[in-house]
Amino acid sequence: MKIEHIAPADIEKRSMEIIDQELGNITLPEDKRDIIKRVIHTTADFEFARTMRFSDDAVARGLDALKRGATILTDTNMACTGISAVSLKKLGGQKVCYMADPEIAAIAKKNGSTRATASMDKACDIEGPLIIAIGNAPTALLRLAELIEADQIHPDLVIGVPVGFVNVIASKEAIMKCHVPYIVATGRKGGSAIAAAICNALIYRLTR
Amino acid sequence: MKIEHIAPADIEKRSMEIIDQELGNITLPEDKRDIIKRVIHTTADFEFARTMRFSDDAVARGLDALKRGATILTDTNMACTGISAVSLKKLGGQKVCYMADPEIAAIAKKNGSTRATASMDKACDIEGPLIIAIGNAPTALLRLAELIEADQIHPDLVIGVPVGFVNVIASKEAIMKCHVPYIVATGRKGGSAIAAAICNALIYRLTR
Repeated sequence: MKIEHIAPADIEKRSMEIIDQELGNITLPEDKRDIIKRVIHTTADFEFARTMRFSDDAVARGLDALKRGATILTDTNMACTGISAVSLKKLGGQKVCYMADPEIAAIAKKNGSTRATASMDKACDIEGPLIIAIGNAPTALLRLAELIEADQIHPDLVIGVPVGFVNVIASKEAIMKCHVPYIVATGRKGGSAIAAAICNALIYRLTR
Repeated sequence: MKIEHIAPADIEKRSMEIIDQELGNITLPEDKRDIIKRVIHTTADFEFARTMRFSDDAVARGLDALKRGATILTDTNMACTGISAVSLKKLGGQKVCYMADPEIAAIAKKNGSTRATASMDKACDIEGPLIIAIGNAPTALLRLAELIEADQIHPDLVIGVPVGFVNVIASKEAIMKCHVPYIVATGRKGGSAIAAAICNALIYRLTR
């Protein structure tokens, strides 16, 4: 295949044009189009155009939380790393992940749970606007659904895109039944890069 | 879907069993099976079972480099974060990424290149066994192919799994024509998580 000569600053724009072309007649909801396109940009997988689900208030609530300087909590350091620190800082927001926290490891060991589960318990103490982005661990998403139903945590938005084979679909179904704004990629697919991409799509809408 | 009750320590094993079942009659080369399965585990995308390509010496050279305490250089901080620090440390290896390095940003700006390209130039100065894992930027993989052909860098293994729409396929074709051991996911798909998964599969073969 021939190399296309293109300036570094134009690569993303050109990618988005190609995605638009290939989406062709697939109709995406206009206020979610940039988010879905950024997920496709991150994965080169057009399946996400038909698997992503948004609660009615998800985008508005996510943007509102970001405008108020939200904390974004992720379930992996990878997802946390993938969120644009420079852009989030412009909004006065912060990103956190507890997975490497020794206290979390100790709690998980004591409870026979995963560290991701223990991270959600700790998240109940976060104050102010909160977005929780789960790109890896269905155990985190299941625990989060329990905590929301028990009225112990009230995130402004849950991004639920864990990936894999054990309880992944069940965890996404559980969070979509909760009273919480959500963005979910149904099915088995997802991942840390996708969680970060959805966060960045929202952040870029306010900063670019 | 019903929730499957399973101990945290057994989730990965169960996932791998499901992957084995669903691979069914697809024959994977035995000495690469764990690597391909880990990529599927990371993505829930079985397409990688037919798109991954290995040069004959790739796995042996990668393992040999790791045994000798290799440096793993990545093109994104996300991929770097995804590589198991604990396991790599057991082998005396280290992981590095230059993308946040102000010097790299300055060089890229001066040259009108991407930071990923500038990172590959800097990589020529790395001493000792070297694995380069590219999960994002085709510009990095194209530059790396040029540097290898110009005899300016001699990595023990190149993991070439950039993702996207502009020059991604061309960059993978270019690296597979070089005289270098490679692991490549052909086509547009790839990503930082996949680059990290391939590194971890090799690391775990020596540490688990």
